[in-house]
Amino acid sequence: MKKYTDISDITDLDSLIRETILLKMTPFEYHGLGKHKTLVMLFFNASLRTRLSTEKAARNLGMEVMSLNVNEAWQLEFEDGTVMDANTSEHVKEAAQVISQYADIIAVRAFPSLTNKVKDQSEYILKSFEKYATVPIVNMESATAHPLQALADAVTISEFTETKRPKVVLSWAPHPKALPQAVANSFASMMQRMDVDFQITHPEGYELDSNITKDVPIIYNQEEALAEADFVYVKNWSNFNDYGKVLNTDPNWMMTAEKLGKAKFMHCLPVRRNMVVEDAVLDGGQSIVMQQANNRTFAAQIVLKQILENLN
Amino acid sequence: MKKYTDISDITDLDSLIRETILLKMTPFEYHGLGKHKTLVMLFFNASLRTRLSTEKAARNLGMEVMSLNVNEAWQLEFEDGTVMDANTSEHVKEAAQVISQYADIIAVRAFPSLTNKVKDQSEYILKSFEKYATVPIVNMESATAHPLQALADAVTISEFTETKRPKVVLSWAPHPKALPQAVANSFASMMQRMDVDFQITHPEGYELDSNITKDVPIIYNQEEALAEADFVYVKNWSNFNDYGKVLNTDPNWMMTAEKLGKAKFMHCLPVRRNMVVEDAVLDGGQSIVMQQANNRTFAAQIVLKQILENLN
Amino acid sequence: MKKYTDISDITDLDSLIRETILLKMTPFEYHGLGKHKTLVMLFFNASLRTRLSTEKAARNLGMEVMSLNVNEAWQLEFEDGTVMDANTSEHVKEAAQVISQYADIIAVRAFPSLTNKVKDQSEYILKSFEKYATVPIVNMESATAHPLQALADAVTISEFTETKRPKVVLSWAPHPKALPQAVANSFASMMQRMDVDFQITHPEGYELDSNITKDVPIIYNQEEALAEADFVYVKNWSNFNDYGKVLNTDPNWMMTAEKLGKAKFMHCLPVRRNMVVEDAVLDGGQSIVMQQANNRTFAAQIVLKQILENLN
Repeated sequence: MKKYTDISDITDLDSLIRETILLKMTPFEYHGLGKHKTLVMLFFNASLRTRLSTEKAARNLGMEVMSLNVNEAWQLEFEDGTVMDANTSEHVKEAAQVISQYADIIAVRAFPSLTNKVKDQSEYILKSFEKYATVPIVNMESATAHPLQALADAVTISEFTETKRPKVVLSWAPHPKALPQAVANSFASMMQRMDVDFQITHPEGYELDSNITKDVPIIYNQEEALAEADFVYVKNWSNFNDYGKVLNTDPNWMMTAEKLGKAKFMHCLPVRRNMVVEDAVLDGGQSIVMQQANNRTFAAQIVLKQILENLN
Repeated sequence: MKKYTDISDITDLDSLIRETILLKMTPFEYHGLGKHKTLVMLFFNASLRTRLSTEKAARNLGMEVMSLNVNEAWQLEFEDGTVMDANTSEHVKEAAQVISQYADIIAVRAFPSLTNKVKDQSEYILKSFEKYATVPIVNMESATAHPLQALADAVTISEFTETKRPKVVLSWAPHPKALPQAVANSFASMMQRMDVDFQITHPEGYELDSNITKDVPIIYNQEEALAEADFVYVKNWSNFNDYGKVLNTDPNWMMTAEKLGKAKFMHCLPVRRNMVVEDAVLDGGQSIVMQQANNRTFAAQIVLKQILENLN
Repeated sequence: MKKYTDISDITDLDSLIRETILLKMTPFEYHGLGKHKTLVMLFFNASLRTRLSTEKAARNLGMEVMSLNVNEAWQLEFEDGTVMDANTSEHVKEAAQVISQYADIIAVRAFPSLTNKVKDQSEYILKSFEKYATVPIVNMESATAHPLQALADAVTISEFTETKRPKVVLSWAPHPKALPQAVANSFASMMQRMDVDFQITHPEGYELDSNITKDVPIIYNQEEALAEADFVYVKNWSNFNDYGKVLNTDPNWMMTAEKLGKAKFMHCLPVRRNMVVEDAVLDGGQSIVMQQANNRTFAAQIVLKQILENLN
């Protein structure tokens, strides 16, 4: 792996998952690998799990970590050829090149606006860093993708799979605020690369990007979709067609213990209790959200490890 | 010591103080102890001394340190059973459990609201982390207690004690803003565990929690209280009875060199000059506030050391 | 070097530049020097390059680094004898002394107000830390000086000099916001210590502090100044006479490829494209801004190295 901006950067998923599970058993084995290597983490948006797990992953590898909340410094410019006479103080061209000189790997978190679909879909922040940085980029959740989360999800499903080809359902849930499609996108892409029976259920009109969901069955009847599921991944996303809108907050889409049946419950967290999922599910024995969150460290660590191994 | 949320977690105070003073002489002796161990410091409130001294303590022990200003991420929910459809994005149940997977010890700073006495007294933030985290918790100042400060204070008094049983006075001081009772509480509790003649002086009506002060003499006449004192600990707190109110800013309660007599002057800092204490005291030879602040590092270090030794 | 608050702290510039260039080749050679030593970086203002490069420099030397955004903690008081009954919570006397107990070196960034010339020129923030701290102070850009930048600039000019005595021009540029004179000041001071033909060009009335520019030729005709230049350092500063005002935004002062001729282009960054300098210059082969930014790490590292070597 030479960078990790999207799950398409994974060539052999099975072996990557296997290596991650091995790494989890001996997290400090490669502590020498990151010696004198620096990870710079750039946050355009808030983070708890991603910040802590990625930093921990880097430190497990012996890397130095420097974090910057970019907007606490100043606004970056992303347009080419613009006269910078307004609010932006530095062009990403300079910022990315400069930071590359202080870093061996740069990790970037940059959420979508959810107001400008074309711009969000262009992934202009992440792509600008990819274009101008001279070191590998790791995506800590961008406008349309959260590949570190998806890798942790894949590892978790592998660890908990008991049948030959489990049924995995991505089930939309209501939420009061407009949230990105990134987690759902990357999970949907990842499931298409695993040997699982994958289905998506959401209210009509809440279709994700069809370039991502491709031929995945979309079932508008949640009950039907959930039948016999082995894993249910619950996640809200704001509308993708009527972009960024919250058009539905129907509480009937909330996940309940009854609906869950015998499936394992998954969510990327943070999760709003009794809005997205009822307490009984999160507090019950079928929830594997903690294992997912724990795997965030090792997903980040295997990615950083492989990138470090490919440096020069 | 298996955690340090309150000074009641100290079993043998004398020996702890002795060990702290020894540690101060060879701060890097246990640098191997924290290898591959991570301290996560969670700040719900601002910090200067506590942040730097606790981080330094952990690094002296060879620990990795990750800090998070929680409110920069998002608001946590602390109520059980609530429908999270408003401003809180994540329940402390999830947050504490997740962070426990990235940390070997979690340190928390969470001030009181000073508006809701019952809620503040319940220590719901600290107690929630204690309840849901799966790793030891260290209190970096909570709604009602500041045990790391109190330990540093106890060490400082031990170092400067010249008589067999020194007289120690906690003297209230005026302040323009409503401040917590935490430092005063923990100091009062700590002094009751030391072999000192401890008294408290404050304006009438400014009584601290009687569950904490117990039988400690409370003397409303500051001059009388200060007579023959060996150590005078000056600290403002807002009213505990008429909760969180600033009912008195009488400058006559300010500490002066004249009032101090021959006593050593103590304060946890930050301190407002010429409001809480006059310049002559802080700049004079009887002030031991710098030694107190220095002992913050070693108080934190002995606590982290003992907790590390008790892990697994 | 025992501290680095101003370029006057450099005794032998030539040898310092030579050592910096050597250090750049083996950045980790002195990794043992900083063992168990702590750099505390205090930011009163935003920073990207300075924060990352100084932290990297310290880590290259094996130091521990702790950063604090001071204003996120609370407001410091700098006046002597004041009654602190308003917005300031802690006097710099206490803060500087306390932090000195947690640090082996303290680095401070504190910009000018650009509204109170006398106060800014007094460098009261930096000087207060120098006065009250008990450990060496490094200036990460103060009200009137940016000596780490100037050292990186000097190193860069040394690396790129092809003639015996290059012509170096500091050329003012327009900018929509009021910026400090610090970078221009330190660059002007530094150039007077190097064997270069140094000239300054800016609109009439935009004179820098004459105590700094001394006998440096000031040429109001930019074209004339730029003729035959080997290095052109472009930088905006707000008016020093009519203090802090933006009296001129004439786009004719912007640097263009045509004006630049065969000179190398320098700027400290961040830079506003097509306002301060046109794209063609920044994206062209004569720009050495990236090398300047890279040298920030090694300028900071040689300074920290020399200070560490002088500690007790």
